[in-house]
Amino acid sequence: MRGAVMHAPGDVRVENRDDPRIEAPTDAIIRLSAACVCGSDLWPYRGIQPLDGPTPMGHEYVGVVEAVGGEVTTVRPGQFVVGSFWASDNTCEICRAGYQSGCVHRVPMGMLGSQAEYLRVPLADGTLVATPEAPPADLIPSYLASSDVLGTGWFAAVAAEAGPGKTVAVVGDGAVGLLAVLAAKQLGAERIIAMSRHESRQKLALDFGATDLVTERGDEGVARIKELTGGLGAHSVIEAVGTQESMMQAIRSTRPSGHVGYVGVTHDVALPGMEMFFSLVHLHGGPAPVRRFLPHLMDLIAARTIDPGKVFDLELPLEEAAEGYRAMDERRAIKTLLRP
Amino acid sequence: MRGAVMHAPGDVRVENRDDPRIEAPTDAIIRLSAACVCGSDLWPYRGIQPLDGPTPMGHEYVGVVEAVGGEVTTVRPGQFVVGSFWASDNTCEICRAGYQSGCVHRVPMGMLGSQAEYLRVPLADGTLVATPEAPPADLIPSYLASSDVLGTGWFAAVAAEAGPGKTVAVVGDGAVGLLAVLAAKQLGAERIIAMSRHESRQKLALDFGATDLVTERGDEGVARIKELTGGLGAHSVIEAVGTQESMMQAIRSTRPSGHVGYVGVTHDVALPGMEMFFSLVHLHGGPAPVRRFLPHLMDLIAARTIDPGKVFDLELPLEEAAEGYRAMDERRAIKTLLRP
Repeated sequence: MRGAVMHAPGDVRVENRDDPRIEAPTDAIIRLSAACVCGSDLWPYRGIQPLDGPTPMGHEYVGVVEAVGGEVTTVRPGQFVVGSFWASDNTCEICRAGYQSGCVHRVPMGMLGSQAEYLRVPLADGTLVATPEAPPADLIPSYLASSDVLGTGWFAAVAAEAGPGKTVAVVGDGAVGLLAVLAAKQLGAERIIAMSRHESRQKLALDFGATDLVTERGDEGVARIKELTGGLGAHSVIEAVGTQESMMQAIRSTRPSGHVGYVGVTHDVALPGMEMFFSLVHLHGGPAPVRRFLPHLMDLIAARTIDPGKVFDLELPLEEAAEGYRAMDERRAIKTLLRP
Repeated sequence: MRGAVMHAPGDVRVENRDDPRIEAPTDAIIRLSAACVCGSDLWPYRGIQPLDGPTPMGHEYVGVVEAVGGEVTTVRPGQFVVGSFWASDNTCEICRAGYQSGCVHRVPMGMLGSQAEYLRVPLADGTLVATPEAPPADLIPSYLASSDVLGTGWFAAVAAEAGPGKTVAVVGDGAVGLLAVLAAKQLGAERIIAMSRHESRQKLALDFGATDLVTERGDEGVARIKELTGGLGAHSVIEAVGTQESMMQAIRSTRPSGHVGYVGVTHDVALPGMEMFFSLVHLHGGPAPVRRFLPHLMDLIAARTIDPGKVFDLELPLEEAAEGYRAMDERRAIKTLLRP
């Protein structure tokens, strides 16, 4: 089959890879309906996260089940399925607590490479969620978004305790930040402040439910959030970048008693103890347990209540994956959808 | 009046200080029934936190109201009162959210020095809680404990979401850690693991409700907690020390989905972003909003349901405050009560 492989920073090639096959009786093989490039794929692309040799890329996926192992009972060939970027058993104590991304048997899907024609999904029963029937083609991008960026933005909003009566600020205007705006809106937040200086992203933030835009960053961004919240800071702040600056901007934008939900992968971040201590904020985040939210998110998509697929503003054949990475790296695209 | 003043690390003297007087119409003056030395007073005593010249010491207090300013309506001269180590208005939005230690008008009581005969309490209506009548003498130490160490341990247990069905681990066997054990017990925790290697403190932890003792620290302590919790870590971990080692011990002892409640003042602590991210724990803490819990804690003390005063294992006249500091510094005493 064909699949994207990163050979070095900036060097993504679509090449022949071995077809995946059932390796364990709990595996499924799916034929991808669509794949995409994630903001987190840009960390190795930019050389910030080291690569250990040529690496198959991609961890977001939707597709049709081709084959299942002998122990798989909840999905069957022919069904359209969505899964999370962590395969999980969904039965261990951590999964039952709603943290499938911390499953004791978890497998990172990034190791398997979903920017390809086919994908092996371990722990299929605990990982995949099937739709009742094949969805209309125009909903495919939204289902694909639910596999990671929507589920991650939703987790961030839940971790930040966005809800009725709350003012929510969102640091980061990538696909996750924008979908965190959508999540905060769905969760009933009263006011949603999107921090963005890019016109196309601002527009999408407003489409998704943002009530205010703040273009300032860092200390000036914090000052602006304070101004908008009677000097106190927001109740809920979502961090969807993962740098020292963005984490501190999020913490400092939160009022004492408030909640920071952080989902940007925290590269080279060190949180200063004394400032954390006196901030009196709640801090929660990490790799999102998307599986917890998938059934609900898929229902919202099927009912056309939400349209998270709007974050894909570039669509390319899989063969042109390299251009998909380049466009996101250069911020010409928010998120690239790849058609195998 | 007489009062304790720290002149330099290791140098505490009881000397004549000006009698406090009403400075604002919201002030009260109290005559202290008892005062005490806090674990956090040891930071400057040990030279870890810089001193800005001679500093009146003490921020925990119980006493009898001597005088009140013209705007004070909820306490009156003659009443026995307890207050928190942060004076707070108890009416602002942050106070109403239960975070009086983040009150927009907060005043740190440590600046006023309660290791003395008299104390000025700003924002008396929002800070002080009176008992219905003068309490019996043997309850004074417990009321004094509620002013900080009990309220702080309680906040830590609440921040760590200790409760029914939960396994709680407590890092730190000072007065706050020991009273966090008591709090976890009162909050209904199923299993409470105290981390301590000191016999007298272990004994008190068991008295307060600990079900298990762990003597190992650092990585070995973490491994032991994992062993006791089916490899997963505790649901709730309370951090009551404030060093890099103790914070990491707390975070690493917590299962994904679990909660860390931290109340040790985090000196020279930097939390590594990637480890925080992948831990999937909730982190909350800071200076405890003791005022939130005071009415309930005072009821429990009046009913003799709890006996937090047991943490005082050394009682001295105020004049001998220096020995009280020395005994705590050398870990000969858990906590020193001073009688003015």
